[in-house]
Amino acid sequence: MMLPAIARTAPAAFGDPVEAIDTPALLVELDAFERNLARMAAFAKEKNVRLRPHGKTHKCVAIARAQVEAGAIGLCCQKVSEAEAFVRGGVDDVLVSNEIVTPSKLRRLVALTAKARIGICVDDPQAVDALAVAAVEAAQPIDVYIELDVGGRRCGIERVEDGLRLMDRIAGSAQLRLAGIQAYQGSAQHKRRPTERQAAIDLAVRRTVMLREALTKHGAGKLIVTGAGTGTFYLEAASGVFDEIQPGSYIFMDRDYGMNEWAAELPPFENSLFLLATVMSRRASHAVVDAGHKSHGIDSGMPAVAGRPDLSYDQPSDEHGQIFPASPEAVLPALGERLRLIPGHCDPTVNLHDWLVGIRDGKVEALWPVEARGAFS
Amino acid sequence: MMLPAIARTAPAAFGDPVEAIDTPALLVELDAFERNLARMAAFAKEKNVRLRPHGKTHKCVAIARAQVEAGAIGLCCQKVSEAEAFVRGGVDDVLVSNEIVTPSKLRRLVALTAKARIGICVDDPQAVDALAVAAVEAAQPIDVYIELDVGGRRCGIERVEDGLRLMDRIAGSAQLRLAGIQAYQGSAQHKRRPTERQAAIDLAVRRTVMLREALTKHGAGKLIVTGAGTGTFYLEAASGVFDEIQPGSYIFMDRDYGMNEWAAELPPFENSLFLLATVMSRRASHAVVDAGHKSHGIDSGMPAVAGRPDLSYDQPSDEHGQIFPASPEAVLPALGERLRLIPGHCDPTVNLHDWLVGIRDGKVEALWPVEARGAFS
Repeated sequence: MMLPAIARTAPAAFGDPVEAIDTPALLVELDAFERNLARMAAFAKEKNVRLRPHGKTHKCVAIARAQVEAGAIGLCCQKVSEAEAFVRGGVDDVLVSNEIVTPSKLRRLVALTAKARIGICVDDPQAVDALAVAAVEAAQPIDVYIELDVGGRRCGIERVEDGLRLMDRIAGSAQLRLAGIQAYQGSAQHKRRPTERQAAIDLAVRRTVMLREALTKHGAGKLIVTGAGTGTFYLEAASGVFDEIQPGSYIFMDRDYGMNEWAAELPPFENSLFLLATVMSRRASHAVVDAGHKSHGIDSGMPAVAGRPDLSYDQPSDEHGQIFPASPEAVLPALGERLRLIPGHCDPTVNLHDWLVGIRDGKVEALWPVEARGAFS
Repeated sequence: MMLPAIARTAPAAFGDPVEAIDTPALLVELDAFERNLARMAAFAKEKNVRLRPHGKTHKCVAIARAQVEAGAIGLCCQKVSEAEAFVRGGVDDVLVSNEIVTPSKLRRLVALTAKARIGICVDDPQAVDALAVAAVEAAQPIDVYIELDVGGRRCGIERVEDGLRLMDRIAGSAQLRLAGIQAYQGSAQHKRRPTERQAAIDLAVRRTVMLREALTKHGAGKLIVTGAGTGTFYLEAASGVFDEIQPGSYIFMDRDYGMNEWAAELPPFENSLFLLATVMSRRASHAVVDAGHKSHGIDSGMPAVAGRPDLSYDQPSDEHGQIFPASPEAVLPALGERLRLIPGHCDPTVNLHDWLVGIRDGKVEALWPVEARGAFS
């Protein structure tokens, strides 16, 4: 059953001045966004690693295409339904950097191989068997990556011998092709100090090398080592072990990434994503804006008020956010005044919006549907 | 610009067994849901208060209609776009229990008065003036409620004299009709002990009476006093001051409301909303399910695992949730096993889903689109 056509109109029209955009709305400052896009592409080229940006961040075909045009080899994503949106949008190389075990989902995933190169991660023999059934049914080959737990303690195998067992299991199916190792250290991304991130990735690299050597000795062909996020991509790239990096947030950035300490030699990624909000109630002690946590993710903390370090956003409820003075000199915004919030976490924020409103020089230049918004299956 | 038609298929088909529903999916146990619906309707009838359920909880026309059929006078909601969805769906009495100040939004709101009785809240003379402009332009009357801060310290006027000033301002426009007082005590809803909630509502009632008496002495006609939520509705109803109650969560309940202490004489609202999730990775220490915080709201804490007090859900990421043993005897679920999660907070959870899957006796009986999902403008 398909969702009935619902009038989900964009919060703006092409050419509108920013002042005319309905709120709350998610803005992308295109100049900053394009600089971020180019900087990561240039970095990957210079370091000679493949760039496979994470589509979970933006869930948007227009952005996926821009990333591929800028030099990305393809996209990665977390869900079959995201992969479906990207392949439908013309992306011809997608890695689902996650485990999928349900037969109906695996059939959908394998069906995509008719139109695109598709990869998937495994960490369990039972999942390999289920995938093999789907691939054989469809008579379509699929790339399989063994996910290694490199310190995140979430998914992935823990021991080298488990990897060898998976390799044998993969080799047992004519349609499964062992393509590489997924080695993403998620918990390292937001460690604030560069030395902490370095230590976490050093360990991840050592674990990855152990597995890769064992698989190679066991007879594996060329293995792609893939992983890394916006917090650590430069470390994986420098390791000499990673062939491919998977950063997502670099295109937008957010308040949480802004709290990391960054070394001066890294590409200076800029905040390009802002939630535009309007003050809809005002009193002496605080202002209330029309953007609560149904319009931005608070899982990684509160948003910042862009350009207004004298204001803080706090006490969010579903549809309201409160703005308080953060310094004795602060002047609270007036009723009807608009503020730009820098989301605490970009990925879940984008997932709450149907549209991204691209702006340049104060005008609406792009209206991008978030095709994979809510695509969590 | 309208969102391009996207294949957003439902996670199930009519008649499917629950085992065939794609995950993550939001289930509504229809028996429990219908008992909740009937219990609140019976309570309101018995106490002789009008029931105006909050549509922000479900954002779903099918449920709004069921509430009206069960005796509700109409719905309330927080956003103009929600009101648009409900009026389009046939609800003919909608109160936006919130402040709206943007002229373009006010024009959209006033346009709805052609099809339905519409109310709106105000807490500022400037907002009254903007509303008057829109109502006069459209030559349509609209109900106006003065919002009083009864202890939530978010929106609403603080002083009786501000209410008198708003009343005069409202009286200055031919199309604005002072309909009543919005007196919602949001921060009281989740106070855990009944005595704490009682104390908060006692104060709210006293403040409301003061304002109502002053407005009446100033010449107001009959004023509807409206407010209350699922945590306190029985207190407002017992006050003799509230004419109308606005509970939302009672139809679904959630883990957060489950942590309130409830008096035995209250209607026993049941959990009817469950997030179905699948284990997609498993190791000795924990299992990983395919439901992260992109599929359920964690603003009010983690979900519970229904029927499995020996398991706890923790360390959610965007697309993953981890299941840990909560007792020494716990047996972790197997790879591919499905769990039902009781969301921490029902409202933002529903807002992440395009479909509610109604089930009865283990089969899919209803597929309800969440028409106002993402309607935050």
